[in-house]
Amino acid sequence: MTMKECRKFELGGYLEHKKREIDESLDKYLHAESTYPESLHKAMRYSVFSGGKRFRPILSIAGYEACGGEGQDIMPVACGIELIHTYSLIHDDLPCMDDDDLRRGKPTNHKVFGEAVAVLAGDALLTFAVELIVSEGLNAMGPDRTVRVLKNLMTSIGTDGMVAGQVVDMESEGAGADGKTVEYIHSRKTGALITGAARSGAIVSGAEESLIECIGKYGERIGLAFQIVDDVMDAEGRFGGLKSGSDLDSKKRKLTYPLVFGLEKSKQTARDLISEAKDYVADLGERAVPLMALADLVVSRSS
Amino acid sequence: MTMKECRKFELGGYLEHKKREIDESLDKYLHAESTYPESLHKAMRYSVFSGGKRFRPILSIAGYEACGGEGQDIMPVACGIELIHTYSLIHDDLPCMDDDDLRRGKPTNHKVFGEAVAVLAGDALLTFAVELIVSEGLNAMGPDRTVRVLKNLMTSIGTDGMVAGQVVDMESEGAGADGKTVEYIHSRKTGALITGAARSGAIVSGAEESLIECIGKYGERIGLAFQIVDDVMDAEGRFGGLKSGSDLDSKKRKLTYPLVFGLEKSKQTARDLISEAKDYVADLGERAVPLMALADLVVSRSS
Repeated sequence: MTMKECRKFELGGYLEHKKREIDESLDKYLHAESTYPESLHKAMRYSVFSGGKRFRPILSIAGYEACGGEGQDIMPVACGIELIHTYSLIHDDLPCMDDDDLRRGKPTNHKVFGEAVAVLAGDALLTFAVELIVSEGLNAMGPDRTVRVLKNLMTSIGTDGMVAGQVVDMESEGAGADGKTVEYIHSRKTGALITGAARSGAIVSGAEESLIECIGKYGERIGLAFQIVDDVMDAEGRFGGLKSGSDLDSKKRKLTYPLVFGLEKSKQTARDLISEAKDYVADLGERAVPLMALADLVVSRSS
Repeated sequence: MTMKECRKFELGGYLEHKKREIDESLDKYLHAESTYPESLHKAMRYSVFSGGKRFRPILSIAGYEACGGEGQDIMPVACGIELIHTYSLIHDDLPCMDDDDLRRGKPTNHKVFGEAVAVLAGDALLTFAVELIVSEGLNAMGPDRTVRVLKNLMTSIGTDGMVAGQVVDMESEGAGADGKTVEYIHSRKTGALITGAARSGAIVSGAEESLIECIGKYGERIGLAFQIVDDVMDAEGRFGGLKSGSDLDSKKRKLTYPLVFGLEKSKQTARDLISEAKDYVADLGERAVPLMALADLVVSRSS
């Protein structure tokens, strides 16, 4: 990124603009709270509109634009990704998993709607994400890209992706320091959907295989860095009042990067990953400026 | 169905043959138990291979063949449907839902693997069903039918389908007799995926719109009849030792057809639905003989 491009691009405005577009689309796509059965639709909307920064859908849009994509064709996929992210948060927060009472300072889904509706709201969000992509997404991008995007996303969140990461994360609680395992967890539990989001943008744009791979490599690195930075912030107590006591307690037992590698090494690894990520998209020039800025944002959260 | 066709077709052999093909395909598609993380893959296989009769995938195959489909192109979709059915059973059995200790005479998934892995195994089965259809299914039937089948299935199991049925089922426990609500629950909780399975077969075969609709109407009727017959068998205690005490207790509080309409009226409704279902596919002649026999099977379970 040249100094000129840096000056022109204002990340805050970009994020705000994209977030507004995503929020409006999510509101349009999701059924109204008054749709029968109301408890289910209320529970779905409650967690979708509970203060998420929309990092993953914005990333998919930035990946799309970096590959020459224009207009709103990416929006059903971007929103589908946010619905998948929301489903995973609702299930992760359940008493039988991380047992969190608060998320983003608000009561978790099961605290408001009960465990049964929370499980089903998560199920319904995953189902609706796929439905959205094969209906609105299909209209926007045609059948070939639709199936390609779905394959990419399902691989990201399946038994070698997000769900596997969550299983190993739980099973490693209280275990000793193990660098290989913590990298396995982070690259899947958090990294895989972030990678999948970036790759989805490239696929929807119709990019060539080599470019999709480049965006994927970028995504893998910022995905892993994202969770390392999260660990660092947790270790340094930066979340303050935003996380509940029970959440901090459970985090303390988890296998984290700082626990295995120490705080300084973890911060350095995150910076190195971000630098590598930016190298993968540097050749795209001005179109990749948002991707560059999003990479910087991941690591600057902890600085 | 003419007497001649009746004599030629032997349902027992057909079911056994199709079940074996489906079981072999499921075994081929699903990752081995030894795949890391093992607990997740074991939990998925445990419930997939726990004695299911494969009614839904067999129905999709029968629908496919009734519309002129031949060979194995339907198999990824048929198996995907069984994976979706299995995911729904695992989540329904959870302590926060129906709280069942046994299913088909074996401990439920969460009793063996714990609640957290059970939730995640369900999530992974739904995800893998979609992944299977957009990979193996895509190779077999091309992108247009792949997206159409997925849209059909996601609608069947979403917020106006299976998940909605489960929510209303739970929320109606202990409620008074209400015919409209019990029909809403049954047509969605059980009926929607059965309808979706039959319709999927027609879609994969490349059938015309009017024929897909016919198979769908057939599916709606046998789907509703299936759950009514289940209710009747429950009410008459036909499951014997196959259901646990806690399961029977919870069923007793549920809104059922016999509770609302009485046993005799419920049985008559099931018979009428099956008769209507058969009328919808009668014109297809010999190709529809398995669909006819499957319809009869639904109601003969209770006779």
